[in-house]
This record gives sequence, C-alpha cells and structure tokens, in this order.
Amino acid sequence: MIDYRSDNTGRAAPQILEALVRANHDTALGYGADDWTADLQRRFSDLFETSVRAFPVATGTAANALSLAALGPSWGIIYCSEVAHINTAEANAAGFFGGGVKLAAIGGQHGKIEAGPLAEVLAGISPAQLHRGQPSAVSLTQATDLGGVYTLDEIRAVAKVAKRRGLRLHMDGARFANAVARLGCSPADMTWRSGIDIMSFGATKNGGALCDAIVVFSPDIADGLAVQLRRAGQVWSKMRFASAQLIAYAENDLWLEMARASNRIAARIAAALRDIPVARLLAPVEANEIFLELPDGAMDALERDGFQFYRRSRTLARFVCRFDTSEAEADALAAALRRHLGSATAPRATD
Amino acid sequence: MIDYRSDNTGRAAPQILEALVRANHDTALGYGADDWTADLQRRFSDLFETSVRAFPVATGTAANALSLAALGPSWGIIYCSEVAHINTAEANAAGFFGGGVKLAAIGGQHGKIEAGPLAEVLAGISPAQLHRGQPSAVSLTQATDLGGVYTLDEIRAVAKVAKRRGLRLHMDGARFANAVARLGCSPADMTWRSGIDIMSFGATKNGGALCDAIVVFSPDIADGLAVQLRRAGQVWSKMRFASAQLIAYAENDLWLEMARASNRIAARIAAALRDIPVARLLAPVEANEIFLELPDGAMDALERDGFQFYRRSRTLARFVCRFDTSEAEADALAAALRRHLGSATAPRATD
Amino acid sequence: MIDYRSDNTGRAAPQILEALVRANHDTALGYGADDWTADLQRRFSDLFETSVRAFPVATGTAANALSLAALGPSWGIIYCSEVAHINTAEANAAGFFGGGVKLAAIGGQHGKIEAGPLAEVLAGISPAQLHRGQPSAVSLTQATDLGGVYTLDEIRAVAKVAKRRGLRLHMDGARFANAVARLGCSPADMTWRSGIDIMSFGATKNGGALCDAIVVFSPDIADGLAVQLRRAGQVWSKMRFASAQLIAYAENDLWLEMARASNRIAARIAAALRDIPVARLLAPVEANEIFLELPDGAMDALERDGFQFYRRSRTLARFVCRFDTSEAEADALAAALRRHLGSATAPRATD
Amino acid sequence: MIDYRSDNTGRAAPQILEALVRANHDTALGYGADDWTADLQRRFSDLFETSVRAFPVATGTAANALSLAALGPSWGIIYCSEVAHINTAEANAAGFFGGGVKLAAIGGQHGKIEAGPLAEVLAGISPAQLHRGQPSAVSLTQATDLGGVYTLDEIRAVAKVAKRRGLRLHMDGARFANAVARLGCSPADMTWRSGIDIMSFGATKNGGALCDAIVVFSPDIADGLAVQLRRAGQVWSKMRFASAQLIAYAENDLWLEMARASNRIAARIAAALRDIPVARLLAPVEANEIFLELPDGAMDALERDGFQFYRRSRTLARFVCRFDTSEAEADALAAALRRHLGSATAPRATD
Repeated sequence: MIDYRSDNTGRAAPQILEALVRANHDTALGYGADDWTADLQRRFSDLFETSVRAFPVATGTAANALSLAALGPSWGIIYCSEVAHINTAEANAAGFFGGGVKLAAIGGQHGKIEAGPLAEVLAGISPAQLHRGQPSAVSLTQATDLGGVYTLDEIRAVAKVAKRRGLRLHMDGARFANAVARLGCSPADMTWRSGIDIMSFGATKNGGALCDAIVVFSPDIADGLAVQLRRAGQVWSKMRFASAQLIAYAENDLWLEMARASNRIAARIAAALRDIPVARLLAPVEANEIFLELPDGAMDALERDGFQFYRRSRTLARFVCRFDTSEAEADALAAALRRHLGSATAPRATD
Repeated sequence: MIDYRSDNTGRAAPQILEALVRANHDTALGYGADDWTADLQRRFSDLFETSVRAFPVATGTAANALSLAALGPSWGIIYCSEVAHINTAEANAAGFFGGGVKLAAIGGQHGKIEAGPLAEVLAGISPAQLHRGQPSAVSLTQATDLGGVYTLDEIRAVAKVAKRRGLRLHMDGARFANAVARLGCSPADMTWRSGIDIMSFGATKNGGALCDAIVVFSPDIADGLAVQLRRAGQVWSKMRFASAQLIAYAENDLWLEMARASNRIAARIAAALRDIPVARLLAPVEANEIFLELPDGAMDALERDGFQFYRRSRTLARFVCRFDTSEAEADALAAALRRHLGSATAPRATD
Repeated sequence: MIDYRSDNTGRAAPQILEALVRANHDTALGYGADDWTADLQRRFSDLFETSVRAFPVATGTAANALSLAALGPSWGIIYCSEVAHINTAEANAAGFFGGGVKLAAIGGQHGKIEAGPLAEVLAGISPAQLHRGQPSAVSLTQATDLGGVYTLDEIRAVAKVAKRRGLRLHMDGARFANAVARLGCSPADMTWRSGIDIMSFGATKNGGALCDAIVVFSPDIADGLAVQLRRAGQVWSKMRFASAQLIAYAENDLWLEMARASNRIAARIAAALRDIPVARLLAPVEANEIFLELPDGAMDALERDGFQFYRRSRTLARFVCRFDTSEAEADALAAALRRHLGSATAPRATD
Repeated sequence: MIDYRSDNTGRAAPQILEALVRANHDTALGYGADDWTADLQRRFSDLFETSVRAFPVATGTAANALSLAALGPSWGIIYCSEVAHINTAEANAAGFFGGGVKLAAIGGQHGKIEAGPLAEVLAGISPAQLHRGQPSAVSLTQATDLGGVYTLDEIRAVAKVAKRRGLRLHMDGARFANAVARLGCSPADMTWRSGIDIMSFGATKNGGALCDAIVVFSPDIADGLAVQLRRAGQVWSKMRFASAQLIAYAENDLWLEMARASNRIAARIAAALRDIPVARLLAPVEANEIFLELPDGAMDALERDGFQFYRRSRTLARFVCRFDTSEAEADALAAALRRHLGSATAPRATD
C-alpha cells in the first residue's frame, strides 16, 4: 500500500518526539508557566521577527475556531473560501466558539478568496443592514484547500480591502510551512507584514504529532484569547510536552525541510503528469497536494494497484504528499497514472 | 527544592512516552480511525467490565465541560460541590460548552456533595419554576478537591436522589486512580454500577502527559458527543499518539501503581502529622493531597527550607504528592513540619 | 405615496388592538399563568384540531430561532432554502440560539426546497462524517420568501425524506395565513398532518401588532422550549396583552380574511401584468408578494410616481400587499407599470 | 381578593395603551426606522440630559441579559448581589446571551452590593489567574430585589472600585422609577453621572404593558448591541407600537407619578407596621416592596382573609404595591396584619 490519503495519516518527525521525551525531567509549573513555553515565545518571536504570543493547542480546528472567535463579536460575518477547511470540515467549530458567528464564502480561484469579490460583497452590506449581521473578519487558508499558494501580493490585496472596512485577518496555516517553502519568503512577510492579525500555525500535517499553535501578531487580542483558551480546554497542564514539540519543529529549519520535501514530491508527480495529456489538474500544484480529475475506472485501477487516496467526488481524486513520502513512491504513482491514463486523449487543463 | 505544588508539575511515566514513541510507524487514518484507538476501546471496555466509548481529549477541563454539556440542555442546572474544580478553576468552561448551563453548589463535607442537601435543593425547584432553569445533572469529583474519597455508598446515595428526579451523573475523575487505589474497588463499581453516566478519566495528574479521556457508560450520549468533540477541537488528527498514551497508562496496572505510590506518600506524611498536635487537617487524607492549616510563619519557614506548595489562603497550605515523590521527600516534609510546629500546642482536628 | 415596501410597514387590525385594551382589567398572574394565555391554548388547539402548545413571542426571528434550536443539538445541520428569511435576514439568529447550529441550503424553485435535492444532500453525509456536523432538521418557509406556496404534496414529499433520516420539521409561517388562504386547506393539514413538528405562527405581517407565536405539535419539545423561552427573554410578565392579541387575530377568521384580502390584491396586480408582455415575474404570485424583474428606469419612474417598494437588486423589485392595501392602490400600480413598461417588448416568463 | 403578588400582575396605565392605539395609522418603516422610535431617542436623551440610545425590548430579562452581554467578553465575570434577579430568576439568561459569562455574588445589605466587598474580591483575582475567568462588569439592581434603594454615594462608591479595575457598570432598573421617586434625584445623576454605562429601563412593573428598554450611555456599546438585538429576536418589525408605549410612559412624568403612588402605598403599610412590634422587616421599605418575616400561621390567616402575596420561604412574605393599589387596600392589609400579629411580642428588626 502506498498512502496518499492525507498528511495527517503520517508519522511524526522523530526529532519532535525525541524533544518531547527529553522534556520529561524535573518538575515544572503547569498551564504554560514552564521554561519550555517561555522559550517557545522567544523562538517564535525570532522566527517571525516581531514579538508574538504563541499558544500551543491540540488541533487545527481549535486553532482556527478560537482565532476566529478572537477577531470579532458573535454577530460578525467572517469571510472565507467556499472550500476552506473552516467551512467544510470542522463541524462548524467557528460558529460554536464564536457564539453563532457566521461564515460567508467569497469567490476566487484555486481555493483562494480574491480582493475584487471581497470588495464587492462588503460594498453590498451597509452598516445599517443589521439583519445581515456585520462583517468582522477574513480568513485566508495558506496553502489553500486546493493545493494553491497565495502570493504576497494576493494576500496584501485582500488585506487592503479588509482593513479599509475595519476587518481583521486570520490565516489558516495548516500548511503554512508548505506555503513558505513554496514562496521562499520570510514567515514575517507572509503574515503580519501583509496584514495578518492572528494565525493558526500548523505542525501536525507537516511532521508534527499532538499540537499546533495559535500565533498572535496583534497584541490587543492575546490576553483575552489566553482566558478563552483556558475555558476551551486547550491549555495542557503539562504544557512543556507541547511546547517542546513546537520548539523542535521550528528548530534548525526542520519544519521548512519537511515542507520542502513534501512539496518536492508533489512537484515531481505534477511534472510527470505533464506527459499525460488526459490528466487534468483542478488547480496548479504549488504545495503538497494534488487534485486530479480522474475517470472512475482509473481510480478503481489505482486502488487495485495499492494506492490509497481520497475520492473527493466521482471524478476528483486527492493525493497528499507527506514529508516522508519517497521519490520511489512518487514515481510509482506517476507510472501507475501513466499506465491507466496513457492511452486517453482528453486535453489537460490550461492552468 | 522539593515540589509539592501539584500533581501536574510532575514528569510523565516513562512507559507512557515510550508507547507514544513506539506508535510512530507506518501511516494510520486520522481522527481516531486508527488501530490504537480501536484497541483503546477494547481495553477500556475490559477495564470497566462493560462496553464503553473512550474519547481521548487534551485536558481535564475539556473532559469535564464536554461531558457536562452532553448530559443535558443548555437551560439545565448542574449540581456540584462549592469547591469542585469545574466551579472554581476552569474559567466557567462548563457554562461555555453548555451554552450557558448553570452550575449550582450542594453542601457536603470534605469537598463532597451529599444526598440529603441535594434532595432538599431538588425539592425546592418545581418543574413549573421555569425562571430558575431546571435541574439536569450532578457532578461528583472523585477524589474530591479537598483530598477526600467518596465511598461507594456515598456515590450511590447521591445517584439515587438524582435519578429519582431524572438527573444524569458525571464523575470528574481527575484523580480517579487515587480513589480506586484508596477503596480497592473495581472501576466498574465506582462508576456505572453506582449510577455514573459519563466520566472524565484523568491521566495527566497521575503520570500522564498530554491527554485525559472521556469515558461514556450511557450509550445514548456517545454519538452526539463524538460530533461535539470534533467541533470542540478535541479530536487529534494523529489520534494514535493520544490513544497510545492511554493504553500504556492502563496497561499492567501502571495507573493503579502510580496512584498507590502517591497515596502512600500522602498517607506517610499524614501519619507523621499525628505526632504534631498543632497540625490541623482540613479533610482526612484519603488520596494524594494534604490540606493543612498552618500559621503564616510556618509556611514561610517551609519555603525557606526549599519546599514548594500552594498557599490556598493565609492559613491553608496544600501539599500534593506525585507518583514519583519519594519517601525521603515525604520524611523531609514531615521533619520540617515537626521542626516548625513541634512546639505549638493547638489541638488537631478530629477528622 | 403608495406603500408596497413590506407587510410589516402596515397598521394592525383594529380588532387586535381593541382586544389588547380590553384585557386591561384586574390583576393576573405573570409569565403566562393568566386566563388569556390558557384560553389561547384552547383556541389554537381547536384551530389546529389537536392539542398544541402555543407560546407568544415578540418577533418572527425569535419564533424561528428558538423553534430551530428546539429541534436538535448544537452540532446539527438545518436545511432550508437559500433565500429563506432565517438564512438571509435574521443576523444568524439560528446560529446564535442554536449554539452554533449550521444552516445549509437545499435547492428548489420559487423559494422552496424540494424533496429530491434534499434526499441527495442527505445521502452525501454519512453518520460517520463527524467533521461535517450531522443533519438534524428541515425548515420550510410557507409562504416562501419569493411569494410561492408549497402544496400539501410538496410539504409531504420533503417531510418523508426528512423523517426517513430522523430529521424534524419546522415551518416558518411568517405568512402562514396567506398560504392557508391560498390553498384553502386546514391549518392541521398544512402542518402536523404533513409532518411539521413545530411552527413559527406569524401574525405581525398579516395585521398583527407586537407578537407572533411558536406552535408546538410534537409534545416532547414543549417543556424544554418553555424554559428556553424564559431565558431568551421572550416571556412577557404581562403575557395577557400578547395572548389577547393572538386570540383576536384567530377569532372569527380575522386572520384568514386579512390574508385573503392581501392575496387578492396581489393576484389583481399579477392579473394586470399578464397584459404587459415585458413584465417578468421571478415566481408565480401565490400569496401577497410580487417579485418583478424591472429595468432600472422603470423602477425610477415608479418611485417618481410615488410608489414605495424594495429594489432587491438592480433589476428586481419586490411589491408586498398588506391586508389593507386597496384595490385602487392595486390598480394604480398596474396602471403605472403599464405606462412605464407598455411599449417594451421582451417576452414574459413562462411561470 | 387583594393582590400583593407582584407589580407585574397589574394593569397597564391607560395612557400607555391609548398611545399604542393612536400609533395605528399610516405605514411606517419596520425595525425601528419609524418616527416614533426616532422621537423616543430624543425624549430619552432629554430625560437623561445626554445623548443616549434607547432600544425597546420585550422583557426585563432581555434587557438585562443583552446589556450584560454587551459589557464584556464571554470569559468575563459579572458581579451582582446574591439576590439579584439576574442571578435568581432569569433562568441564567445572562449566561446564555453572554456565551457562558459567569455571575458572581458580592456581599452587601438589603440586596445591594457594597464597594468594600467588591474591592476585596477584585483584589483576590489577579490578571494572571486565567483559570478563574476575568472580571468584566458589575450589575446593580436599583431598586434592589429586597426593596432597598442605593443612594447616589453608594452607587458611586461601587463604580469607583469597578472603574479602577476597568470594569463596566450595568444598572438593572426594573424598578428604576421607584428608585428615582424615592431619592428625588435626576435620572442622569442616578445613571451615567454615577458611572453607569448601560441600563435596563423598566416600564412593565410600573404600569407598562409589553416593553421595557435598554438605555445605552456609553456610545461604543450601542452599534454592536443593535445587531445583537436583531439576532436576539428583540427588534419588533412594527416597532412603533413599542416606542409609542415608552413615549407615553415617560411623558408628563407619568412614570414618576406611578412610581410615587406605589412607593406611597408601600410606605403607608410600612408606617402601620411600626405599631406592630412583632412585625420584622427584612429590609427598610424604600420602594414599593415589603419583605416581612411572618409566622406560618399569620400567612395562612392573611390568605384566608383574601390577600394574595408570595411566600418566599416558610417565614418570609413579600408584598408588592402597584401603581393602582389603593389606600384602602393598604389599610386593609395593615389591619389584617395587626389583627393576626397584634398580640405577639417579638422585637422588630432594628433596620
């Protein structure tokens, strides 16, 4: 079996678990008042080139929902992509933590939201239209849920429209590392320097084990969030074991190396697809995910070959590369696709 | 320094971290659809001698608040001890997850609630008194927040009163292991056989690392709770790393051995206190916590000696024993107390 | 000025206010324990030919949101039309009262949801897909937000699909009277005999003043709802003044006469439109609302003529008839439309 | 029967219902965009000698819970009297609308909270004690739930302590008119000039019919509250019928005259009690409520005489005077009390 089901089916980086084990000595105050968590603040502030507050949390859903709840009142409207994870796959956690906050979709390509449609929607809701609720925030998923990556210009264009109306910005960085690896820019440029107020800093999908983090760039949000995290059951009493994971994740560029590895494998497969005219990508492969339109029969054949992947619809397959997916596994998938699609002749997508 | 601050300042049992590391191989489906989590269900069902659903969660606060929210509607009243952790130390997580559910205190000794006062309070709220909300559940903390342990008879007396009114029962078992170790009864006897519908199964305070669990005895609650956990951000995608911890915790009686160890240390200190007439215990030492009324000056002196503990008030000190607190550390505390209190002559409490 | 802006811009029926004034004698117990509210229960039970619980509430938004919250857990998904008032115009009250409950749109014509698309959506969410939340209820708007009326068969087809999955049904009857008047069926046939569990019984838009009602057909819901209404601030202490309004509204078929009147006016205008080939209706005129596609210029001209109405978009105008809109006002509108559109030649819609 | 059960069992002032009926002409925009509601803003701004926002709402529970929710985050702690209506009689509406906000009791006499105990409690919660939640607001009930009235100095002393910690202040003015009538001060002095940010302006208990109001003094709160009211189902579409009631209530000092009347009756009864040594008041009679400690037998006897009142406990009776309670009714109660208690000899309370 070769597993392309998700980046969360994979192992954790051994360095991360070793760090967790290494933290198991002596006593340490609970709930984040330990040395590891203090160290984490310094390291993430270095990483982001500004003073940030980093809060380890158990899951990306917690990171997203609590971040969004921190960005505005319960009567707010939060704009995101139709396909955003917060909109499709978190059981409406945002609505729950946000006291009934509303998610609304904004159009754009490849899982992005775009500045133009956002501006149009905002123009259509006057501050007097109380019956609609009122716009409060925007959430960008970076990399997107279709495997795309926002350029800095794209982020800034959305941020400009949002800030003009007083909205705040969240980045769902479940695959932040893959996006940074793709653009080669600094974490600071991709976030607060482009207008992001708060982010979900993903680790789990990129070789992490049991925690992600919320990183707060706008200091006015942080103190309230700290209380909210406590009542949300997201503050481990033995926090050191979470902070140690995140320290190891960010240390020595481990996070970027793992993201580069999974991006590289995805690019390798995408490159091979260029030779298969019938293989139609739903979106350009810019991170570690490949969304491929495939005939039913081809999906069946791949499964018979031992490949595991998600059938997102009858004609859409998703392949996700992990940090430890090997080149051999990539080549095996490419070969199988060539085998099952090679004789077909439909034109491939132009994107 | 000798640390008696809390059982959550301590290390994790090495066996638990080893199990976590051992789980780091191959790929496994996310969100609990893995072999470890399936194994956990079997093992906990064996442990409790009935078919249970066990949900690993990040923290005791999450376990408590989500359990309570599962027990009744948002307009419910949940009865607990005045000093219950859910009432004093979880930032009203129960109110948050329960959509504004109300906690109300019931009297009793040593952090317990008692059947008599509960019956009296219930009799005072007629089903027609809509303006009061309506009783929906009872939460027992076992061991209690003052270091006491409910006997089975005490639990059953409360359960009988509660069930008569149709209320459901939650057990906050943050220190469940200490209570089971104390009574020497079966986990089944202490829970579902005594009327408990759902419990917070604590591991962190007793040598765990990054997870506790919710254990559901009443099957009608479980499916809804599973969705709620997802939107609460309490379902790890790499769940195997949580389930593996809990498996190791329960394996080979590790959990009971650790609880017996910390209980034994607490009992050793308590025994030594018998020789110090002035040392007044707030409650009998039945688990791993000691609540001791001490003069200011004695607390200062202990701190100068290098002992760490919580000053709960100007006259009340809490000492918590961990699974790895040594007999030497116990004897050192007893000696110090004797030193600083020995000459005093106030009578000790009769309890 | 001739006002077609909404049925809530209008006066109340004098009989309703007279009843309110007549109730102002003697003392009466608060919060619904008065004779008027008891009488209301009997009268509505007669009206619906079954024992119902009727709860007066201040607004349709309260009626809807609290009804929906009563139909399922906070992790539920409630299906409704894309254009349903609960989805577009209540500031996400459903999400708020429902603790983050999610609204999801189902396709259909003229503001209806249809059994086929509902069945398809339900089939696409397995009980194991916890990350999506879980289906819990369906809300039908009768008459619809585009001026259509569900036939009994249409309601029953939706109900059949919903019940098969265990979902409960809500009817948003803000314009229930107009729908009953249109079909000439009994209130019972349109509601519980067709599978409706709970309804928002609208009065305000049809000549009422300060209250609507929730009518509960499924008794298991009622007791909890009664508490919820209390904490939602929807239980007047001087309830008699609300119940008296609803009694007068339903007495002597006043409600139906008013609905027949506004329906008749709308039909009169619609009939006149048949002679204007260019006038394109968005949906058949089956109740008291007319949704008309109009060129910008024609809307401007109507406004210059003194007509008030809502411009729902640059090309869509809404005209709402009230119980006291006169035939002369109808004819004036028809004449003006003929004047401004008469020379145009675009084909009219086939519906 | 002579009814002393509550001030909400009574009639409404005829002037208020007449105003409601008078508003029934022409069409008017919905949801508060009408002339009556605009007029209400001007009149209440005049009444309070500053620019206020006045929002009619259906009930005092709605006014309280939505005001409190507007004063701080869901993780906040709101301090009030143990016997405050928000704490004892609104089914935890504050917790519901506030997303799990926590009410905590502060000590004081006669249903008041006092500055000293408040300061002590605040000093006991450091900003670092996240597990406790964080103080956010204070709610004063004026007149109190035991029939007392805060002096301006008492309000200001509490406000000073609260503001020092950054807390905001709510006044539950369900019996605001009675308090203003008692002190003879201006509404401005009793509210914003003493530090109140927002108030529940009661009308129902003092001769109103179907609405109370929220009055906002701190402008930063108002816009968000306006959206929240909409989603809370507290914005009538035919708002004119609510605003007209409040206009009539405040016009020509009607509200104060009614409060003076009910206060006068209560004072008349209290004066008569001075001659009955055994009659023990729970609190001084400063508004329209009398809390009287009475033997069981005396309560039985009063009921046999045809008096209606609430038995708050086996030994405590509450008598509430309405704006239309007559002097004859007062004298009848006094005579009956004298009759049933006259021969007893226990000393009366010194307060």
